[in-house]
Amino acid sequence: MEFSLFQQKEKPQIEAALVRHLSKEKEFEGTLYQAMHYSLTAGGKRIRPLLLLATIQTLGGELEQGYEAAVALEFIHTYSLIHDDLPAMDNDDLRRGKPTNHVVYGEDLAILAGDGLLTQAFELLAESPVSDKKKIELVLALAKAAGPNGMVAGQVADMEGEGSSLSLTALKAVHEKKTGELLTFAVYAGSVIANAPIEIESFLLQYSTHFGLAFQILDDILDVTGNVDELGKNTGMDAQLNKSTYPALLTLAGAKEALEYEIKAAKKSLAEIEAVFLKKGKSIDTQLLSDMVDLLAVR
Amino acid sequence: MEFSLFQQKEKPQIEAALVRHLSKEKEFEGTLYQAMHYSLTAGGKRIRPLLLLATIQTLGGELEQGYEAAVALEFIHTYSLIHDDLPAMDNDDLRRGKPTNHVVYGEDLAILAGDGLLTQAFELLAESPVSDKKKIELVLALAKAAGPNGMVAGQVADMEGEGSSLSLTALKAVHEKKTGELLTFAVYAGSVIANAPIEIESFLLQYSTHFGLAFQILDDILDVTGNVDELGKNTGMDAQLNKSTYPALLTLAGAKEALEYEIKAAKKSLAEIEAVFLKKGKSIDTQLLSDMVDLLAVR
Repeated sequence: MEFSLFQQKEKPQIEAALVRHLSKEKEFEGTLYQAMHYSLTAGGKRIRPLLLLATIQTLGGELEQGYEAAVALEFIHTYSLIHDDLPAMDNDDLRRGKPTNHVVYGEDLAILAGDGLLTQAFELLAESPVSDKKKIELVLALAKAAGPNGMVAGQVADMEGEGSSLSLTALKAVHEKKTGELLTFAVYAGSVIANAPIEIESFLLQYSTHFGLAFQILDDILDVTGNVDELGKNTGMDAQLNKSTYPALLTLAGAKEALEYEIKAAKKSLAEIEAVFLKKGKSIDTQLLSDMVDLLAVR
Repeated sequence: MEFSLFQQKEKPQIEAALVRHLSKEKEFEGTLYQAMHYSLTAGGKRIRPLLLLATIQTLGGELEQGYEAAVALEFIHTYSLIHDDLPAMDNDDLRRGKPTNHVVYGEDLAILAGDGLLTQAFELLAESPVSDKKKIELVLALAKAAGPNGMVAGQVADMEGEGSSLSLTALKAVHEKKTGELLTFAVYAGSVIANAPIEIESFLLQYSTHFGLAFQILDDILDVTGNVDELGKNTGMDAQLNKSTYPALLTLAGAKEALEYEIKAAKKSLAEIEAVFLKKGKSIDTQLLSDMVDLLAVR
């Protein structure tokens, strides 16, 4: 299946599920709800939930079993953006073409809206229509991916790296935590829900790791070459904060080469998965996951 | 069993478990770890984990199965204190006799330390030595208790109530969310882990609800009558922020009466539990839970 078709079908489902899960409890209203709703519906690309659902689709699982996990993942991503944008953190006032959460609702509500989204994500996972065993695998994996050994550690490392020059290895490690872990969770969650055969686990992990690095390198490149209208967020922020980035370490051309390398490596992992299926006398169509990597190519 | 003996035995276990679970992963070190460790070990009374373990003990369950949940609960409580103390929230610089987290580590790390503790709490629940079914019950209950319909909503209502006079009913509702939900989780989690008979569920809920209200009324009273040396936190803050409190709404004498009422009501719930056991030809010793309510009496 082509990604453009899949996205056309699934993105509206994700948007609807995000709002449905946010507002299902009647007592929950007022400014906190508004602040959470504002950032959740501010128009992201929904790469993470789409990647999760695309993994289920590719492995022949039931998409219906994946929406709670997909929404939980987007809740976590959204909370991280709200907290990252705070004055005490990156102090950003523009996100997805709109004023950031604290600009609209104040810092206090922005902190609490983030806390609320983070906490509710685990409620959603616990309500996924899958077995208790799978629910626990999802809770454990998301907590690890998003927690103080995962995304939160990446955010700390990212902040502490401001103003100092990191080695490429150190930069990669920061990225793997800060953005890579959630993308890896997306693929892992999809594989749990769709009962991926054990022989392809390591290739799925390779795919998501390369996907995550490509994703971050592109983000670094666009911060240099993009403009605020295209991206909906301020550009040149990395240089302003004196952050280590791929273009800063490798030049822009070098960063584009690194991006190409990661894209190829991700596709190689998909080829390995196909080979495993072929050896078992089965077939698998990885075009969807391949198309998603191609989205990360510099246009 | 008397609470003083139980506390003497279990508080050191809880302290050890808190640090053990925080630092079990080797890669996790540096300033984020320090910031999390600082607030976790700043010397709380550990009422919530003790209440959870006391419930297990009372119901004849295995304490060994409760430490992860007890630690998770204290992680959540600690994160909420760190975020509540932030300049954008209550702007408090003293907590448990020590400078608050952001005073020591900066606002950025304080926000992230809170996020880290909140997230890791769910990892701990998922690793509890209980069945998958029970793990999911714990995850669901903690996410609901701490989330945007629970504690986070209470915090928002508390902030929004500053400067305006709430009715007693509204004040009770704020307290039930802000502090009551986590105390209710403590008793609920204990009852799940210890396989409480279904007939006492409603009485356990009553007990924890009255316990939570008594807890908050005492907190309000001490903010008026206590001093900073005894409490380890600034007093008179409620009046300064013009918050609705029990003493403000009912006078100090009226607040003390309300406290007495909640303490009695909590004990009545324990008597109901004993009656249920008696009717089944069994016995139960509720002294531990009764002693814990007595701790909340004005001395």
